Amino acid sequence: MGGKQANGLAGGYLDWMEISYLGPEGTYSEEAALGRAEQLAPERPRLVPVATIPAAVGTVEEGDAEEAVVPIENSLEGVVTHTADLLIHQTRLRIRGEIVLPIHHCLVLQRGLALPDVRVVYSHPQALAQCRRYLARRLPLAEPVASLSTAGAVGDMHGSERPAAAISSLRAARLFGAEVADRDIEDVRSNRTRFVVLAATDAERTGCDKTSVCFDFGEDAAGILHGALGELASRDINMLKIESRPDRRSLGRYFFLIDVEGHREDPAVREALAGIRGRASIFKVLGSYPTGKV
Amino acid sequence: MGGKQANGLAGGYLDWMEISYLGPEGTYSEEAALGRAEQLAPERPRLVPVATIPAAVGTVEEGDAEEAVVPIENSLEGVVTHTADLLIHQTRLRIRGEIVLPIHHCLVLQRGLALPDVRVVYSHPQALAQCRRYLARRLPLAEPVASLSTAGAVGDMHGSERPAAAISSLRAARLFGAEVADRDIEDVRSNRTRFVVLAATDAERTGCDKTSVCFDFGEDAAGILHGALGELASRDINMLKIESRPDRRSLGRYFFLIDVEGHREDPAVREALAGIRGRASIFKVLGSYPTGKV
Repeated sequence: MGGKQANGLAGGYLDWMEISYLGPEGTYSEEAALGRAEQLAPERPRLVPVATIPAAVGTVEEGDAEEAVVPIENSLEGVVTHTADLLIHQTRLRIRGEIVLPIHHCLVLQRGLALPDVRVVYSHPQALAQCRRYLARRLPLAEPVASLSTAGAVGDMHGSERPAAAISSLRAARLFGAEVADRDIEDVRSNRTRFVVLAATDAERTGCDKTSVCFDFGEDAAGILHGALGELASRDINMLKIESRPDRRSLGRYFFLIDVEGHREDPAVREALAGIRGRASIFKVLGSYPTGKV
Repeated sequence: MGGKQANGLAGGYLDWMEISYLGPEGTYSEEAALGRAEQLAPERPRLVPVATIPAAVGTVEEGDAEEAVVPIENSLEGVVTHTADLLIHQTRLRIRGEIVLPIHHCLVLQRGLALPDVRVVYSHPQALAQCRRYLARRLPLAEPVASLSTAGAVGDMHGSERPAAAISSLRAARLFGAEVADRDIEDVRSNRTRFVVLAATDAERTGCDKTSVCFDFGEDAAGILHGALGELASRDINMLKIESRPDRRSLGRYFFLIDVEGHREDPAVREALAGIRGRASIFKVLGSYPTGKV
């Protein structure tokens, strides 16, 4: 696994670890992939942007990359519910890690331009929506125009014939040489996007782990979930997140997605998961992995 | 409540019921508002587009509209997690109804244009993403360009100097006089967006109702939820949906959002909710309302 790259010194080839992510460069997904690379230091993986979440998963399934970093909650880039559905239904990959990224937007300007002269502001529609109050206050005369991503917005700004600004990440501003006029311009400060690292296997026990599982239920949702949570509560296992999702293949059936504290090899967690498995008709451990820090 | 409109015949004023929705015209939100108007027939409410979800809520809080229709799950237009947060934290409005809208995209063309000649295709980035496979197959040479909404995409197409297509709803295509080249072009067919109707009070009992509640929890999430679900399971009350959300104001605290079958005035539901209320420190009935049909 991993890509190959010529090694000039030895005249041979070295194997490099590759991580694919939902591109292009300069998006918040790339920041998450950089965050993953930091977690893996001193290893220096090569980051490879791909066009879609299924394509990112495909690179790992086919052995072209060792890991894929994809958004799973509250992203600006891509339809994130797809990641959960993919994990439930379509792939054998496991979650090996997570990255929780605070989302801060910058206002960037064409070089030499002053704020009062701006007539158009580019960004992804959701980023424009997240900065609506700021724009009304500081750029009331600028027309909002949609871009495909917050990274693409910087390019759209550079190419604009009208005096233009863009909303992007700090990284995209630096990557594409744009002047940063203002930082943290989002109306609500607590925005975060959670990314997961997908790989052929999940992670070893570290002592500060979490485990994601999914299981299905039909008519008696409250009863089945009540029983399942009893398995956790009776062992003092903390639940971190719960979500129900419709089964895309079968109307009237649902899946629960649950994150709990601990590794699937911790004795209490193992017992609890065995208990839940016995109550559901479909049960899948999506992975155990170290709890991500913000 | 409701707007006022000159009544030419009597020379006086009639009160009209007004419903605000996340505009502009031609979006899927407008379709949902039209669906709400149908539910209210023979009453003929006036539909008023507003720019944001908080603005829609504001029109009802200030008595300018009787109801607001806003997306709550899986919308293309707007950051929908905000609707749930608004209901939990910021408004006393109740959920009076729901509309479940299947999301089908159309490909529309500039008049007289043939598919092979298209060089650019406009839409909201999430709609472009949802039709990626279709575009790769049928319009491999067209450049995707972002628009602020699927409705705005039709206008962008009309104004384009290059031979252009757009991805929009059937309603937007008809509203803005665009030629429909193809229907149901989304890669995954089961896409739906759920909208809620917000008003000063929730709905009367109909016998086919659901009830949305939220309550908070701290450290012992599995234990509290286990107890809460016991209140439902022991009374054979079906749970339709569950979701945990971080409390934006207090790190480490969470809210559960739960939908159950039945009206809050049904005796079993009333007892169960009283039991849950006794276990949580914050508890809020978001509303009881007739179950929406797709």
